[in-house]
Amino acid sequence: MNDAPVDSVALHRYFQRDRFARLVGLEVLEIAPGYARVRMPLREDLHNGLGIAHGGAIFTLADMAFAVASNSHGTVAVGVNTSMSFLAAASTGTLTAEAVEVSRGRKLATYTVRITDEAGAVIAIMQGTVYRKDQPLELDTPGS
Amino acid sequence: MNDAPVDSVALHRYFQRDRFARLVGLEVLEIAPGYARVRMPLREDLHNGLGIAHGGAIFTLADMAFAVASNSHGTVAVGVNTSMSFLAAASTGTLTAEAVEVSRGRKLATYTVRITDEAGAVIAIMQGTVYRKDQPLELDTPGS
Amino acid sequence: MNDAPVDSVALHRYFQRDRFARLVGLEVLEIAPGYARVRMPLREDLHNGLGIAHGGAIFTLADMAFAVASNSHGTVAVGVNTSMSFLAAASTGTLTAEAVEVSRGRKLATYTVRITDEAGAVIAIMQGTVYRKDQPLELDTPGS
Amino acid sequence: MNDAPVDSVALHRYFQRDRFARLVGLEVLEIAPGYARVRMPLREDLHNGLGIAHGGAIFTLADMAFAVASNSHGTVAVGVNTSMSFLAAASTGTLTAEAVEVSRGRKLATYTVRITDEAGAVIAIMQGTVYRKDQPLELDTPGS
Repeated sequence: MNDAPVDSVALHRYFQRDRFARLVGLEVLEIAPGYARVRMPLREDLHNGLGIAHGGAIFTLADMAFAVASNSHGTVAVGVNTSMSFLAAASTGTLTAEAVEVSRGRKLATYTVRITDEAGAVIAIMQGTVYRKDQPLELDTPGS
Repeated sequence: MNDAPVDSVALHRYFQRDRFARLVGLEVLEIAPGYARVRMPLREDLHNGLGIAHGGAIFTLADMAFAVASNSHGTVAVGVNTSMSFLAAASTGTLTAEAVEVSRGRKLATYTVRITDEAGAVIAIMQGTVYRKDQPLELDTPGS
Repeated sequence: MNDAPVDSVALHRYFQRDRFARLVGLEVLEIAPGYARVRMPLREDLHNGLGIAHGGAIFTLADMAFAVASNSHGTVAVGVNTSMSFLAAASTGTLTAEAVEVSRGRKLATYTVRITDEAGAVIAIMQGTVYRKDQPLELDTPGS
Repeated sequence: MNDAPVDSVALHRYFQRDRFARLVGLEVLEIAPGYARVRMPLREDLHNGLGIAHGGAIFTLADMAFAVASNSHGTVAVGVNTSMSFLAAASTGTLTAEAVEVSRGRKLATYTVRITDEAGAVIAIMQGTVYRKDQPLELDTPGS
């Protein structure tokens, strides 16, 4: 529980290496210990056949906030499971996911994620647990 | 429970309109009543910062099989919730998701999804419920 | 969404008919529209073989808060699914579950539940969805 | 993964110490490595206010099968999370839960559980993950 503070700029750079996040158009807005906020503009290529955001795209947004929050302590955390409830459809504008740490032990940690649209309506909620490895994130160090 | 049989070719065409599925590179292999099989080649742009398939990509594959199976009866079904367990990492090759209907009532139906790699190892499992609308899928009819 | 207000005393009486809640020793502390608080003293007959509260007992507490909150609008709501994360063990004292409504439509509604111990530590969290029937709760009416 | 075989009789005796299982009336029918089958007669004191089996009782049955299967390798496994879908109501007769191991690593293992009634209808399904401690079960040894 006494992880050393991690450089937020190095964390932002680390998550920019995430190629799937780039494909989907995710933008990490904020990282703090056990916390993350990520957004996703609802491009039309994120739609399903009904013309609304695909469940997979919405999940990807939540999963990214979950990953950033759980890796924010500077060690690798991998998702063990996630439960998502889809509450409302969304097709345009930008969605934002906010992940909050509920509990963190040496090996396991649990987070809740809330996805809202621009009007503040809740689109989906997620609950997820990670396994924390004894492996530091490979952060770029300035000047290296 | 006495839905009329649905034209499988028309269903395949329907799901080809899914733009996010195309972005991620999903291929619907098989559709039967309450059943679907979908695959996803693990392109490098589906990777996260650790160089393995992003949880969001793996979920999208499962969610697509879930959507195809639950819409296979010819009426619109929307995801209510999903619980996914991530069992092993995957980085190359092709993953396949198989969705099976466990229960179907007039308004709700439940599915399990299993994702395996080419060697048959289970990568992830999902359990999900849909809400079934009183709305037929807008299938193309031949000659229309 | 424009359900008439429901008599809180009649709701409390209604949930006293729940025999399993009585067996487990649950006490409904508070009911408000979309909200409930329930507590459970950790009797030794709620323990598992390790001498700590059984997962089934902890779930039952959460499920009761979920049921009371989702039936608080005066119509029957039945659980569709629930996802629970167990965060810490508990063996003595009293646990309290608080259920909050996140979303409510005509047929589906979603709740989060948080279980805490007497010191305020979070023991478990749950996320659950109900299906809302077009059937009023059979509440006792005063004088009947 | 190369746990030594565990004495099934000692395991049965171990789970008989579970006081909550006794309160609810659970009976462990079968234990094998990564597998368990448990049953629960639907006594009237397991009912909720609607006169059907309480979600907490049904969960407790599933959770017990999950616990027995995950502890069957002889080391302590504690539930991390569980996702349950309730598919049909049940009020009389006996329910049976069967837990099957889907994946097992050194620290985490995942199980699916299926609850059926006497006619074979699926009443509920569960998916759950445990954390495996480096702690042997305290089994009675014969003659001790």
